Amino acid sequence: MRNDGREYNQIRPVTITVDYIKHAEGSVLIEVGDTKVICTATIEEKVPPFMRGQGRGWVTAEYSMLPRATESRNVRESSRGKVSGRTQEIQRLIGRALRSVVNLEALGERTIWLDCDVIQADGGTRTASITGAYVAMVSAMGKLIEKQLISRLPVTDFLAAVSVGIVEEKAHLDLCYKEDSQAKVDMNIVMTGQGKYVEIQGTGEEAPFSPEELQELLAYGKKGASDLITVQKEVLGPLGLSIGSTDGETIQNA
Amino acid sequence: MRNDGREYNQIRPVTITVDYIKHAEGSVLIEVGDTKVICTATIEEKVPPFMRGQGRGWVTAEYSMLPRATESRNVRESSRGKVSGRTQEIQRLIGRALRSVVNLEALGERTIWLDCDVIQADGGTRTASITGAYVAMVSAMGKLIEKQLISRLPVTDFLAAVSVGIVEEKAHLDLCYKEDSQAKVDMNIVMTGQGKYVEIQGTGEEAPFSPEELQELLAYGKKGASDLITVQKEVLGPLGLSIGSTDGETIQNA
Amino acid sequence: MRNDGREYNQIRPVTITVDYIKHAEGSVLIEVGDTKVICTATIEEKVPPFMRGQGRGWVTAEYSMLPRATESRNVRESSRGKVSGRTQEIQRLIGRALRSVVNLEALGERTIWLDCDVIQADGGTRTASITGAYVAMVSAMGKLIEKQLISRLPVTDFLAAVSVGIVEEKAHLDLCYKEDSQAKVDMNIVMTGQGKYVEIQGTGEEAPFSPEELQELLAYGKKGASDLITVQKEVLGPLGLSIGSTDGETIQNA
Amino acid sequence: MRNDGREYNQIRPVTITVDYIKHAEGSVLIEVGDTKVICTATIEEKVPPFMRGQGRGWVTAEYSMLPRATESRNVRESSRGKVSGRTQEIQRLIGRALRSVVNLEALGERTIWLDCDVIQADGGTRTASITGAYVAMVSAMGKLIEKQLISRLPVTDFLAAVSVGIVEEKAHLDLCYKEDSQAKVDMNIVMTGQGKYVEIQGTGEEAPFSPEELQELLAYGKKGASDLITVQKEVLGPLGLSIGSTDGETIQNA
Amino acid sequence: MRNDGREYNQIRPVTITVDYIKHAEGSVLIEVGDTKVICTATIEEKVPPFMRGQGRGWVTAEYSMLPRATESRNVRESSRGKVSGRTQEIQRLIGRALRSVVNLEALGERTIWLDCDVIQADGGTRTASITGAYVAMVSAMGKLIEKQLISRLPVTDFLAAVSVGIVEEKAHLDLCYKEDSQAKVDMNIVMTGQGKYVEIQGTGEEAPFSPEELQELLAYGKKGASDLITVQKEVLGPLGLSIGSTDGETIQNA
Amino acid sequence: MRNDGREYNQIRPVTITVDYIKHAEGSVLIEVGDTKVICTATIEEKVPPFMRGQGRGWVTAEYSMLPRATESRNVRESSRGKVSGRTQEIQRLIGRALRSVVNLEALGERTIWLDCDVIQADGGTRTASITGAYVAMVSAMGKLIEKQLISRLPVTDFLAAVSVGIVEEKAHLDLCYKEDSQAKVDMNIVMTGQGKYVEIQGTGEEAPFSPEELQELLAYGKKGASDLITVQKEVLGPLGLSIGSTDGETIQNA
Repeated sequence: MRNDGREYNQIRPVTITVDYIKHAEGSVLIEVGDTKVICTATIEEKVPPFMRGQGRGWVTAEYSMLPRATESRNVRESSRGKVSGRTQEIQRLIGRALRSVVNLEALGERTIWLDCDVIQADGGTRTASITGAYVAMVSAMGKLIEKQLISRLPVTDFLAAVSVGIVEEKAHLDLCYKEDSQAKVDMNIVMTGQGKYVEIQGTGEEAPFSPEELQELLAYGKKGASDLITVQKEVLGPLGLSIGSTDGETIQNA
Repeated sequence: MRNDGREYNQIRPVTITVDYIKHAEGSVLIEVGDTKVICTATIEEKVPPFMRGQGRGWVTAEYSMLPRATESRNVRESSRGKVSGRTQEIQRLIGRALRSVVNLEALGERTIWLDCDVIQADGGTRTASITGAYVAMVSAMGKLIEKQLISRLPVTDFLAAVSVGIVEEKAHLDLCYKEDSQAKVDMNIVMTGQGKYVEIQGTGEEAPFSPEELQELLAYGKKGASDLITVQKEVLGPLGLSIGSTDGETIQNA
Repeated sequence: MRNDGREYNQIRPVTITVDYIKHAEGSVLIEVGDTKVICTATIEEKVPPFMRGQGRGWVTAEYSMLPRATESRNVRESSRGKVSGRTQEIQRLIGRALRSVVNLEALGERTIWLDCDVIQADGGTRTASITGAYVAMVSAMGKLIEKQLISRLPVTDFLAAVSVGIVEEKAHLDLCYKEDSQAKVDMNIVMTGQGKYVEIQGTGEEAPFSPEELQELLAYGKKGASDLITVQKEVLGPLGLSIGSTDGETIQNA
Repeated sequence: MRNDGREYNQIRPVTITVDYIKHAEGSVLIEVGDTKVICTATIEEKVPPFMRGQGRGWVTAEYSMLPRATESRNVRESSRGKVSGRTQEIQRLIGRALRSVVNLEALGERTIWLDCDVIQADGGTRTASITGAYVAMVSAMGKLIEKQLISRLPVTDFLAAVSVGIVEEKAHLDLCYKEDSQAKVDMNIVMTGQGKYVEIQGTGEEAPFSPEELQELLAYGKKGASDLITVQKEVLGPLGLSIGSTDGETIQNA
Repeated sequence: MRNDGREYNQIRPVTITVDYIKHAEGSVLIEVGDTKVICTATIEEKVPPFMRGQGRGWVTAEYSMLPRATESRNVRESSRGKVSGRTQEIQRLIGRALRSVVNLEALGERTIWLDCDVIQADGGTRTASITGAYVAMVSAMGKLIEKQLISRLPVTDFLAAVSVGIVEEKAHLDLCYKEDSQAKVDMNIVMTGQGKYVEIQGTGEEAPFSPEELQELLAYGKKGASDLITVQKEVLGPLGLSIGSTDGETIQNA
Repeated sequence: MRNDGREYNQIRPVTITVDYIKHAEGSVLIEVGDTKVICTATIEEKVPPFMRGQGRGWVTAEYSMLPRATESRNVRESSRGKVSGRTQEIQRLIGRALRSVVNLEALGERTIWLDCDVIQADGGTRTASITGAYVAMVSAMGKLIEKQLISRLPVTDFLAAVSVGIVEEKAHLDLCYKEDSQAKVDMNIVMTGQGKYVEIQGTGEEAPFSPEELQELLAYGKKGASDLITVQKEVLGPLGLSIGSTDGETIQNA
């Protein structure tokens, strides 16, 4: 058993509070254990220059941490004058992940900005950001439907992300910070409601991992993503948001 | 009467939640109407290079807004690659204000970093930051006492800040965003528990103001600061934090 | 009596040399004691993007010091790669102050750039910059009249700035560097010819100040601003520049 | 069959020219089809500040492209004034990958800088960089042995990287640029000589991929890495470089 | 005699390999002794904003070194976040030199970007860059003729650059790195096929030089430039590229 | 005859005002026609890190223009966030030139910073900077002698700089801005009191120049430098500053 009493293949308690910030078109506070992220979705009625006139939309993400989200204070990237490689890598990951389930044509020539700001960190901030940003994004799309700018949600599936890793020779699901800092292998998995992979990023810097270990991590990741999507459905259902599909079928009527 | 039913010399409802962020030595969520700021205080056991070896501590502040704290999304300063003039001006103001009531010799050679991150903005974010940062700072100093690193709070007085302004020819206390954007004269006042001034920053860019108007604004500011300090006392009292004074007398036993 | 023999409420000798730089539309060398600032006014026949098409002009300022304007050499901001918070704060102050007495509609869609470059510093560089920039700006506006681009000066009043402070428990007007570095309270006041306030920025970082002290500082500031405006009138008078007013009355015929 | 006549599970022709740059301790020109990368290894007799005094070495990488390595000219990152997120992501990947097979204690307190400069790009530049940098690094370590600074190669295994992807519903090994730009799924795999995973980075931004597709991609990747390691052995063998192992056994005597 | 057996007025062996990089419109690898530079020429069908609508083209250059082109590794300018003064000086020199023999009107409204990337340095990198860039540029212009966008080469003359210097009181032509680092006087000379000067940059920081020494250096430079132009003719001749002249005469039919 | 009545080989009127800025160890205002530059020399009692412990001093320069030194306003480099290539080229030139006549060993481990700030520009700002900085530097060295930190001036010769150029097919000495903008060939020459060359920078971007033209420009430059040094002697003489020489002989007793 783990420090906090969880099973190895169990995620931490998850809470998603919708409409957390009054100005944003969509916003949530997602809490995964002690990790807390404010995700806002902003709709901008234009697309970046390189996409203009193609009739397609764009989804992009930014990620940051408050200086004291972490155990010791980290210097603001605005003070350093540049965004770190780690932050850029995470931002690109979040944006790519979210775009994978958005029908950009159906969204129309507008941009959705997803801002993920970690106010308290305890491991898994990038995966919590993806899971929370998905809900904020769908919620913002709901506003577009309310305003009759689009007629249905331009998303093709649910989407959630979770971390897995090998700590003391054992696979673990949803690592807290302490586990993460001891992990020999660390992997983030982003999956859809249909159980397809959107992103797999695994690294064994401390120790290369075998094909068998890989398979176990993939199995844990599948369970974790599925559990998170269950929470997303519970949150989005009452909002009356129906997730459509590209092939014309409705995946879920909330 | 004002839009939200307040009197002209009445502040908005204020809530200060202490220990809001688990990692920080001191932290609060301060809510002044719809303005919400997370203030954390970090104790660092060293001082900046220019102060080393003098046996004195330092207090400094950083301020930021989440991109969607405001009605339309504002670009992150980390993405722009530099901290704006406005932000720097506010940071310098917060740091200066807090230092004015800290006995830096009694603090010892350590730095207190105050991070004020606005998660939702509706006017008065810099004054809410000062008022909240004061509580976070005292709370963090309490940790130093617990660890027996210092024997009493190295602060000389309470400290709060409030905005006043002239809107449609009338003085107003604690302006919300809408009032602020219509104000011809805008002033921020930082005062101590003893009713002394720490900062006065008034600007009449739209319309120079008369000596009589100045006196009325000063009177409103005095009332607002006093009301905010009452809230600070209610929050700090139960924590058993006693605010001392430089002249050896105790200003208040909480 | 003060070191240089001045009364506490006396400003230093002031000289304003007009047309100091041949290329600029308006320019002065202002000397306030040993503080020397070159102020130039540049007229640009367009406004910043955010103001286009509104039929209004803009006034903005930049401030800098030569590296050896000060007792020890300070590193150039161009070498540092960024403008310091202090510089930005001063630039914003100068711009705001000057705009407060300009009728931007009457100026028309053009920008006036005020560049204040301190070539020798001895306290009060930002206030000397405002006082000098005012004259440079009016002088440049005179060129617009000569070219028949506007028919009268689009300014509503005179404008001057002065510092006041408390040194060794005594209020002082127009502090030189040595006095300034010993001041417990430091305040900059910008006033119009009609005795109205444009900016008040007072800070008691070293020691909060009482309402009584505030009143005394305000009185000194009023006298200082008035004395400086007398010098401005002496300089602008011979140039035949008439300062108009927004209410249709002429404030002064030079 | 593919455009260039290859089988779907076949890598492009690979050439590794050792000692390509005369000044570097280790250097190669690696050519994978039309992709050409100069990899140099520099030995620096110190480690970064955060690692000092621990008796361990460090391996880090930098990656860049000449402006005209690509079909259209891309702006230099030095001209832009910052390193792009993509470049940083690749640099971090290369460094992490190489460190996974280096015994940092055995390396001693020195840093190996790996510079990967793409002079001509045709897909797979980051994987070619890893495969080439490995040879440059081992070659530089050979210099340390020659100078008797270390007694054996501080590497635990071979290391190579290859891309796999799904193009027109078919898995492909080692994608050239044209294939890469049409791929729905794109994955980079870094493996050791013993067939363990060091990194897996797969993304299905265009289309999430099924568990079955994942397994096929993994199988292709395994073959590709193995083929590249065969080339590495042919190159390093004649140099008399023996790859050791952490468990005391020699993996290969070249 | 010199270290490498050369006469004092003899250049090092020179090789120019044309079409070295497949994507570029023009490209060479120029080797001058151990100095190796990749020069590419990119044709862009537009000119910088300040030149639009004038019917004239533009030629501009960028220069860089791989980190390990030199004996000890030098930090990338992209990592430093800015282009050094030395690099900018060289880039401006290369651009200016090339433009001096281009008929910008005949080129038409297009820009030629010359990228000179030093992959191995042994003195004279800037002069090798100019000599090589000239060939890459003419080669790219050949592509414009092939596409019938222009009818003849818009160049007025050949162009080559060489260094001269005074080492141990003796004039030297084409200094290698070791000679260069001992030189008291260092001069770069850019000349045309007709023997006219385009640039002379001589510096005697270590020791001012006499008029007589200047004359000897100029004579050496003339010989070096002439020898390099002979190599250029041998390379460009087989490509069938005819260098025209502004006055209607053909300078050389290759 | 030229526009301003000068002969082709005549410099403009030159005035050098010593001790222009009170805080600097050495300072001048140099006026060459309408070009006006403030040059200050700052003595710092340390050398840059790369020179420590060698018992030698250092001389370095910075150059800047006030925004309105020129006919149209130019943007500050501090606002742009970087120093332009042109500025860096000039700074390097000034530093190199001054160092060529300083005995760095005799100076001792201290740095002389030369700041050249152009307050009004009319051509020849870099050459005026060198000529003026020389006087500021010697004047600051005089302070070191007064303080008995050194016993004699650590300079080996006088130093002045002047521009020459070809305008409308005629050689011109000391070009004003208007002449400079029409020049086909532009050359800056830095010479010592003994008539040796320190720097020659000539460029014929608009039109390559013949060996005969070069000789004529060199002759003009010699005359100009000599005339400027006559002015320097008149200024330094009364200060009692004696220019020594490295070979033990006194070049001039002022």
